[in-house]
Amino acid sequence: MSLSDLTSLPGVTATPDAVTHGFVFNHTMIRVRDLERSLDFYTRVLGFTPVYRHVFDEAAFTIVYLVLLGDRTQIPDDDEARREWVLRQPGVLELTHNHGTENDPDFAYHNGNSEPRGFGHLCVSVPDVQEACARFEALGVTFQKRLSDGRMRHIAFIRDPDEYWIEILQPTPLAG
Amino acid sequence: MSLSDLTSLPGVTATPDAVTHGFVFNHTMIRVRDLERSLDFYTRVLGFTPVYRHVFDEAAFTIVYLVLLGDRTQIPDDDEARREWVLRQPGVLELTHNHGTENDPDFAYHNGNSEPRGFGHLCVSVPDVQEACARFEALGVTFQKRLSDGRMRHIAFIRDPDEYWIEILQPTPLAG
Repeated sequence: MSLSDLTSLPGVTATPDAVTHGFVFNHTMIRVRDLERSLDFYTRVLGFTPVYRHVFDEAAFTIVYLVLLGDRTQIPDDDEARREWVLRQPGVLELTHNHGTENDPDFAYHNGNSEPRGFGHLCVSVPDVQEACARFEALGVTFQKRLSDGRMRHIAFIRDPDEYWIEILQPTPLAG
Repeated sequence: MSLSDLTSLPGVTATPDAVTHGFVFNHTMIRVRDLERSLDFYTRVLGFTPVYRHVFDEAAFTIVYLVLLGDRTQIPDDDEARREWVLRQPGVLELTHNHGTENDPDFAYHNGNSEPRGFGHLCVSVPDVQEACARFEALGVTFQKRLSDGRMRHIAFIRDPDEYWIEILQPTPLAG
């Protein structure tokens, strides 16, 4: 479907209001039960870097912003400059941790893919999906859908420590 | 908190595996009841542009990828080039529409902010949060939290047609 067909779909405003031109889809927030486990997963398995943290003592929660960026030299060193920088970036992940949930073995968040449904997944695109999935297997990552499962052989889904689904795909067609 | 303190937090892998350097946090997927209403909201109110659509006839659902990008000249015209391009971008929004839900007046998705909780919100950063919120008011957008509500006077939350929360903030401190 051509771009002009897409911008003519029912409901679509063909030419966005000029005042939205500086808008950035900055982040997606998910709640996590155990911040340490989630930071391990997102940094070790997927390569994210934490760039901002705020602890709300009175309300007993912590937020951490992470970016997925091979080139860390882009990240400002100065704390205030980095805070402003991260709020201008697209593709930031915000983890929210309500203090203490990590100590309750029965505590669990809802990943949105069973009733009541809503949010579906995050997606990380990778240069080589077969290589990435082989590494996830070697790291003991839990799969929701392996490349070999089902009909869609070009995408996989892994699960984070809270069972949120993360789609894994590559931008280019799979090698024969 | 300095960047080196952040990358020393419990759980954090200080130096991500080099194979993750080409990884991109590509998209966030949410299910929407009425695709036309959601496309109207995300394009007219927030300035997103739809850049890819796939209709799964047999499984009766449609996905649309949208980007929030003032400069549309970056978007490739060629369909296959544009598909690859969007899968390399950070900050893409994927809307999933299960066909027919728009005709069921009782159908609703769960936004993750009441029990069972999980996903929290999307966030759009804007150059001027006061100006942006005044425009949302003028457009009749539903607010979850106005700038004047509660203690955090620098952030607002609006709601999309499915009641998903969208945080609105600006990267810089509010003018006095």
